[in-house]
Amino acid sequence: MASTPLPPASTPDNGPTTVAIDLGDRSYDIVIGEGLLDTPHFFAGLPKASKALIVTNTTVGPLYTAKLRQAIAPYYQTVLDIELPDGEQYKDWPALNQIFTALLEQAADRKTVLYALGGGVVGDMTGFAAACYMRGVPFVQVPTTLLAQVDSSVGGKTAINHPAGKNMIGAFYQPQRVLCDLATLDTLPQRELLAGLAEVIKYGPIADTSFFTWLETNLDKLLARDRDALKYAVKRSCEIKAWVVGQDEKESGLRAILNYGHTFGHAIESGLGYGEWLHGEAVGCGMVMAADLSARLGLIDTATAQRIQALIARAGLPTKGPALGADRYLELMQVDKKAEGGEIRFVVIGPMGQATMQGAPESLVRDVIAAHTC
Amino acid sequence: MASTPLPPASTPDNGPTTVAIDLGDRSYDIVIGEGLLDTPHFFAGLPKASKALIVTNTTVGPLYTAKLRQAIAPYYQTVLDIELPDGEQYKDWPALNQIFTALLEQAADRKTVLYALGGGVVGDMTGFAAACYMRGVPFVQVPTTLLAQVDSSVGGKTAINHPAGKNMIGAFYQPQRVLCDLATLDTLPQRELLAGLAEVIKYGPIADTSFFTWLETNLDKLLARDRDALKYAVKRSCEIKAWVVGQDEKESGLRAILNYGHTFGHAIESGLGYGEWLHGEAVGCGMVMAADLSARLGLIDTATAQRIQALIARAGLPTKGPALGADRYLELMQVDKKAEGGEIRFVVIGPMGQATMQGAPESLVRDVIAAHTC
Repeated sequence: MASTPLPPASTPDNGPTTVAIDLGDRSYDIVIGEGLLDTPHFFAGLPKASKALIVTNTTVGPLYTAKLRQAIAPYYQTVLDIELPDGEQYKDWPALNQIFTALLEQAADRKTVLYALGGGVVGDMTGFAAACYMRGVPFVQVPTTLLAQVDSSVGGKTAINHPAGKNMIGAFYQPQRVLCDLATLDTLPQRELLAGLAEVIKYGPIADTSFFTWLETNLDKLLARDRDALKYAVKRSCEIKAWVVGQDEKESGLRAILNYGHTFGHAIESGLGYGEWLHGEAVGCGMVMAADLSARLGLIDTATAQRIQALIARAGLPTKGPALGADRYLELMQVDKKAEGGEIRFVVIGPMGQATMQGAPESLVRDVIAAHTC
Repeated sequence: MASTPLPPASTPDNGPTTVAIDLGDRSYDIVIGEGLLDTPHFFAGLPKASKALIVTNTTVGPLYTAKLRQAIAPYYQTVLDIELPDGEQYKDWPALNQIFTALLEQAADRKTVLYALGGGVVGDMTGFAAACYMRGVPFVQVPTTLLAQVDSSVGGKTAINHPAGKNMIGAFYQPQRVLCDLATLDTLPQRELLAGLAEVIKYGPIADTSFFTWLETNLDKLLARDRDALKYAVKRSCEIKAWVVGQDEKESGLRAILNYGHTFGHAIESGLGYGEWLHGEAVGCGMVMAADLSARLGLIDTATAQRIQALIARAGLPTKGPALGADRYLELMQVDKKAEGGEIRFVVIGPMGQATMQGAPESLVRDVIAAHTC
């Protein structure tokens, strides 16, 4: 468990707000606000270079590349951009190599700054490309989905998929800055907004009961994309993740609590075939299952597990998993990369606002699956 | 230039000797001696894991995989191995991906230890695979060429090639230990031994005149593969490289002096097509050119440049480059990745035993090329 207590939530600022990520010489700021892409000022003070490359995808590029290009134009002689195909199925070597080829064709040197403009896939791929190009160039995250703003852009995890496993090839590599422009969420499909909310909700049970209560009170505002509510939710999520990651940058222990809901969730995603459910949907359902498991292990009472389930349901997320059968669930969780040494370990809640990793009797896990599948 | 003086050479040990690489929490030891592969003891104390993977190539594997397997067998439940095709032309993504696929097929977890058994290509690829697999697993270098023992296995540079450039995709990633078994040099072709000597000789002009004098005295022993002479040469080379890298792990400044001879050398390799000359041969000739450039810049006298050239010639290395034409040399050096911002910067010597980076008038560079090409 944590060696330092979670810092309290800061009071909301007027205008953009900042979360400082303290990682020694890899420290950086997350700036959260409306209209950051309209303001070159927010891109000042980054490492100097003659070239920048905006990496985006075919969905986000047409919406925001021109804006970002205008915002960063004062700082570079040349701003290049590349649009990758959109989708988790393209988070692979051929797409990554498109970035390298673009950089080499333009004789980009080792000072070139990469900008990740898009969701988690773009962020993961751009970050990994930056980690590897000439053994490391600076990069900046400009996440345009709620999920990426609260999750993928914090913590330095970058990766591509291998046909035999998700995120199997990657690096821990920190951005120079993260700019979360809440205005970009206007164009986010509702289903993706809800999927992002799953990762927001996650931070309550694992670390901050007060935040969970705030979410219960303010969920309707978030669903209506109220910018102040979104700003607070993104900021507090980043603060909590920063607190966790700051104590365990390389994921040797504590950081695993961020995977609350993910062991069951990955089984759902993998069992259905990736892309069938959104990641956040699977995590939402996985959190319901993991809360129930926590209750069955006697770590929280049933009412608390139901309280978690109720908020997830209100957020329009699934609370029942697909009927894959308990054997298949167990098999899929077994191959999950967190199943080191063979034993499946779950992130469990207990008491509310605290999480630990532990194994569980198979019979209890089967009961959970039976209770929460269609 | 260096902020700390180069430590003096240590007195030779009987039996295996160690160079400690001090990089904070990424520190590791280089062990140099005869018969390390026959002694499990030298593999003790590495990170614990249930699986290890030996990565080698089709040339080195048949010679040494069985030995290494036996040496590390006491420490793992399972020791896997994979043989990659041999040659710089296979230092690419498809070969790297063979490593990932082998790891995933065997359900290798994030504790799995990779062993690089071979020369620089195997070391670079295994190190990069270790840097990326599940965002980082431990690896151990077992270099079996003189070049890899004195160069590729020290400093944490890992990479693969891209069709548009050598070593363009990689990471700085340190091994857990480097084991230089001098007995493995017995099977090294003479041409590769000489190529390795080029990188040994390099350390004299850039950092240590005494070592250069020692090389002048002991070259015949090295050419005859005298184990004590090789042990001293490998050790002192590693000490000097460690001193440089320890001050500049990420190659922002001082470390560039290790590229003495490499700017001209890369032009030769690239102009002829990679593989025509061995890297060490091109570096040998490149050092002759860079020494001449240093003299023409007035940084050393002509006698010193000739002294450097004489040792390189005695080592059986080329001292004349191919007749590519001065324009082509300049063009090739211009695209070299060290040519940041457009100006070609050379590692020059002056005085003997010290190196700096600087530009040079094009006319002088043309004179050097004219004087040292066929």
